[in-house]
Amino acid sequence: MDTKALFNISYGIFMLSTSWEGKTNGCITNTCMQVASDPTRVAIACINKNYTCELLKKSGVFALSILDQTCNFELIKHFGMQSGRNVDKFEGMLLPKDVNGLPYLGWGACAVLSCHVVDSKDLGSHTLFIAEIDDAVRLNDKAPMTYAFYQSDVKPKPAKPAEEKKITGWRCKICGYVYEGAEIPADFLCPLCGHDVSDFEPIYA
Amino acid sequence: MDTKALFNISYGIFMLSTSWEGKTNGCITNTCMQVASDPTRVAIACINKNYTCELLKKSGVFALSILDQTCNFELIKHFGMQSGRNVDKFEGMLLPKDVNGLPYLGWGACAVLSCHVVDSKDLGSHTLFIAEIDDAVRLNDKAPMTYAFYQSDVKPKPAKPAEEKKITGWRCKICGYVYEGAEIPADFLCPLCGHDVSDFEPIYA
Repeated sequence: MDTKALFNISYGIFMLSTSWEGKTNGCITNTCMQVASDPTRVAIACINKNYTCELLKKSGVFALSILDQTCNFELIKHFGMQSGRNVDKFEGMLLPKDVNGLPYLGWGACAVLSCHVVDSKDLGSHTLFIAEIDDAVRLNDKAPMTYAFYQSDVKPKPAKPAEEKKITGWRCKICGYVYEGAEIPADFLCPLCGHDVSDFEPIYA
Repeated sequence: MDTKALFNISYGIFMLSTSWEGKTNGCITNTCMQVASDPTRVAIACINKNYTCELLKKSGVFALSILDQTCNFELIKHFGMQSGRNVDKFEGMLLPKDVNGLPYLGWGACAVLSCHVVDSKDLGSHTLFIAEIDDAVRLNDKAPMTYAFYQSDVKPKPAKPAEEKKITGWRCKICGYVYEGAEIPADFLCPLCGHDVSDFEPIYA
């Protein structure tokens, strides 16, 4: 099996936000699709170990900001490459709120979907949530950002590590998985979230 | 709610094929996403009234050909705009077969995923299938076709009907739903599959 064939599946990119008992968090995800009409339902998949997923299992509501092509890497990095367990990602951001009182991206996003979960299924690494739409709003007419556009036009090329430092392992920036060893194979894929080595950062001694 | 906000979700385009007791059928779908790793699982949603969906519920196996940008409209029309109940879509096509013996597109597709269903959920209009990957093969290095690319670069603009003919209704070319009346509102969305009026064709008296 050539797991890279799976990279040919097209995705958008989204900021998923939820809130539970005063804790609000958001993360970057690439999985959302409409799965039914009348009533309209969408499905999203979240990594179980992510804090947003943990909160969503309790709150049952989420806002999905659909990123557009003007969204910059800093915003994606802010929501996608640090954990809400360590930092309040929404502190000082003064974002607009949706019908469920959840913050969404008022810029860098072309639409927002406000949803409540009607069913979920634990798939081991991820949980699949099926949700009905409470509200759907178009924010502008910009083109949605696809995952392919993010890879080609938004994501910085990985910097080469300084030669004098000794590398002891590699950490997946997406899910935190650690590969132990100085040299990671070029075709290595994260066993947790499936991302390739361009999403790994070195761990120094 | 502005249901057009849902059009900002990005999708790929796929030819979904399956076979049961000598009947083989395929259709065009835009829903597939990876929903778990270890084991790798994908989710697809199929319209319940489609013949492919009916066969898939029995067979439990499918091949998903991921269309690339060179796939032409005729091929999409062949699999997407007629029913396998009326025609054998694979007759004479001599397509390659995957590890499960299912035909896939040897051209116009950049990859094929061979899957078996491990769970499903009926969502009314659609069934959501969760499947494990038996095999995944890259066929070429061409860019996958997104649904947005299909709309902008592949799909012909709808032809204006001849003035002398009397229109009595409009048929959704995607799912077959019939809107009764000569004039269909410009913002009408198919209540079954959510497609807009550009996917409807006139029915003449």
